Amino acid sequence: MVNKIFVGLIGYGTVGSGTVETLIDNQTTIFEKTGVELVVKTVCDLRIDELKSDEYVKRIPVHTKNVDDVINDPEISIIVELIGGYEPARTFIIRALEAGKHVVTANKALMAVHGPDLYKAAQKTGTVIGFEGSVGGGIPIIRVMKEDMAGNNIESFKGIMNGTANYILTEMEEKGTDFDTVLKDAQQLGYAEADPTFDIEGIDTAHKAAVLASIAFSTLVPFEKIYTEGISSIKPVDIEFAKKLNCRIKLLAIAKKHEDDIEVRVHPTIIPNSEMLAQVSGVFNAIEVQCDKLDKTLHYGRGAGAEPTGSAVVGDIIAIARDIKSGGSKRVPVLGFNKEYTYYYPVRDINDIESSYYLRFSAVDETGSFGTIASVLGKHGISISQAIQTSAHNPGNTVPLVLMTHKVEGRNVTKAVEELGKLDVIQDETVVIRVEGLE
Amino acid sequence: MVNKIFVGLIGYGTVGSGTVETLIDNQTTIFEKTGVELVVKTVCDLRIDELKSDEYVKRIPVHTKNVDDVINDPEISIIVELIGGYEPARTFIIRALEAGKHVVTANKALMAVHGPDLYKAAQKTGTVIGFEGSVGGGIPIIRVMKEDMAGNNIESFKGIMNGTANYILTEMEEKGTDFDTVLKDAQQLGYAEADPTFDIEGIDTAHKAAVLASIAFSTLVPFEKIYTEGISSIKPVDIEFAKKLNCRIKLLAIAKKHEDDIEVRVHPTIIPNSEMLAQVSGVFNAIEVQCDKLDKTLHYGRGAGAEPTGSAVVGDIIAIARDIKSGGSKRVPVLGFNKEYTYYYPVRDINDIESSYYLRFSAVDETGSFGTIASVLGKHGISISQAIQTSAHNPGNTVPLVLMTHKVEGRNVTKAVEELGKLDVIQDETVVIRVEGLE
Repeated sequence: MVNKIFVGLIGYGTVGSGTVETLIDNQTTIFEKTGVELVVKTVCDLRIDELKSDEYVKRIPVHTKNVDDVINDPEISIIVELIGGYEPARTFIIRALEAGKHVVTANKALMAVHGPDLYKAAQKTGTVIGFEGSVGGGIPIIRVMKEDMAGNNIESFKGIMNGTANYILTEMEEKGTDFDTVLKDAQQLGYAEADPTFDIEGIDTAHKAAVLASIAFSTLVPFEKIYTEGISSIKPVDIEFAKKLNCRIKLLAIAKKHEDDIEVRVHPTIIPNSEMLAQVSGVFNAIEVQCDKLDKTLHYGRGAGAEPTGSAVVGDIIAIARDIKSGGSKRVPVLGFNKEYTYYYPVRDINDIESSYYLRFSAVDETGSFGTIASVLGKHGISISQAIQTSAHNPGNTVPLVLMTHKVEGRNVTKAVEELGKLDVIQDETVVIRVEGLE
Repeated sequence: MVNKIFVGLIGYGTVGSGTVETLIDNQTTIFEKTGVELVVKTVCDLRIDELKSDEYVKRIPVHTKNVDDVINDPEISIIVELIGGYEPARTFIIRALEAGKHVVTANKALMAVHGPDLYKAAQKTGTVIGFEGSVGGGIPIIRVMKEDMAGNNIESFKGIMNGTANYILTEMEEKGTDFDTVLKDAQQLGYAEADPTFDIEGIDTAHKAAVLASIAFSTLVPFEKIYTEGISSIKPVDIEFAKKLNCRIKLLAIAKKHEDDIEVRVHPTIIPNSEMLAQVSGVFNAIEVQCDKLDKTLHYGRGAGAEPTGSAVVGDIIAIARDIKSGGSKRVPVLGFNKEYTYYYPVRDINDIESSYYLRFSAVDETGSFGTIASVLGKHGISISQAIQTSAHNPGNTVPLVLMTHKVEGRNVTKAVEELGKLDVIQDETVVIRVEGLE
């Protein structure tokens, strides 16, 4: 009977410390729930000398800078990788799996870009790789899709999957401040990193969307095929117009399964306040899932942070510990389905994806402007569902004109906006934001 | 290698048909996810003769009215009980477990009241009893608590767990209609049963709270100790006052773990609109959970219905099928923790539970009324955080006076209201509604 399982940790940063704190603080609870004593035996970190005074690190018996001390330790059965980035994380995980260790990681960038290598290594060696913490931080969603929703065809999901971006959009809305100011404040408060590119440009969200879409749609999803647009160009004026429409602007990952392909995209999106997703504010995240039988669900919580993400990592460790203790193996496939991990469902090009649109033009305030714009849109098959024009009458100068469209393919909008850009009636660049849930 | 698992179904009602539809419609998907063919071999229902023309029933090989044909069939390894109620459901499940069958049920009344008998039977026989569908319909919450949150101490949860009650409150709020009218409409639309007692009086919610609190707090919870108050006495005027406070009235199950005891209670509750729970409208359900590490999460979806609940039942069937296929056994304890199922954490009496309150008095409109009321409240240790008096000045007649209190024990409110009821300054009965999340 297995009563003690040894865990080795590679990378003692934010999530690493949250994981260790959870395992140590809640040791009794975890024992009560699993019947197994989970012991963090070894911590490996290049900064281990600086970390030695940390009260939790002190309670871990073995400290090392050498990853071999973790990977080659026959007593360790679960290795937790929390160094982040592509390399050497990828190599370490593959070596660990090949050494017969189970692996837990929260590394979304790695899973999104090199996931298939890791899935195949786990499949070949009969080991488990858990990565619940890589999507939605602490929010239970990966196991939910792989287990609770296993009787369903998952048709689509929409998610707010980056706390920094959602915090910035919430602050811009509540305070009426512009993007740069809010970003600077967020950096000072520690809600945004010094280099915030991955968060604000949607790359982090796209990593998570790639991982989640793989599980949702039972396919590999090549990360580079995900259309990704960030929030750095969102202006207070657009947030104000959204308000007039009883809507909010959120950075969403949207993924849908069609008959012959899937769509996966990340971009600022206007959604009605009546949607639960619109109510997700600040650093919180949420993922809405649509299944054929279960219908709509929403899963909300902290998408980042030491302890919430640590909790997801510990959930994976516990799942593996229960597998070991129960004597079962390969209970749930790594992506939740039993196909060879070589199968790529086609990803629809962003130009072929239908959406409703919000278009804000800087239009010259003169008779006929609206007609000119509407006729160019019409020529490209774009029909208008609603127009908002500010009341100011300001002949000869530009006024913002907002047009909401019915559903149309992306390429039509691109072409129409390009053509309109050449006309004198339009000044400045036209703002294009996709809309979900209004029709 | 197990490639085919036979399922027997007892009770082909709403959830039974949703379960069979899910298993049959999504057979290919389920096979892809489990590597196992799940075959519904036998359906047992007293109305089997009437059901024979049902297109799904036609596809089940064995039809019977005799439960022995399911329980004694050596080929069947998973039995699904969906007849509801206490008996004969309890006897059937215990017989099935004793016959070495795994059992899946969505029977919340049974689990709440006779759960311990079933848990013990499952523990003794080394079988699994799954009951994800018994709480929150299709919303993944039981497995989430038992697995994803296993590294946490769950501190509390609050839930909207009855779709009928939430639909009625939502309609009352949106249409300004009174309870009886909305209930009648709901019955005509099929959202409320002919005898709606369990739903509107909070009993169904209390059943679910008992089951969920057992898992959340690692204890058995005696159902009869749960304070339960329904929504039938909620008046449009109270919904209007709640609106003025930027709040809504919801029927909540509230459960909290304290150092020496737990509290579990079901009652109409005033919550601020800024809470995600306040945004849950119509027949939808949601459960908010507070963990020590994961922090706050919310789990939202359909709390009832054939296919959503069927999806939860199928999720449990799949989990058992994966256990069987992987060769593991007793992977996760029935309530998620490994204690003897004889342990009852004390349940705090409703009179000892602290809460903020909304008190609506029918006060005689005369100088000194407010002072009289405030001084009686003060005598009982109740301090007022906010007062709303309608503007109408109507000397000698009664006007509604709403007082919001700071946190105070239930017994103090009961005593104060009783004492005030004897005074001339108060006409009619005083309305008492608990408040969460305002301070």
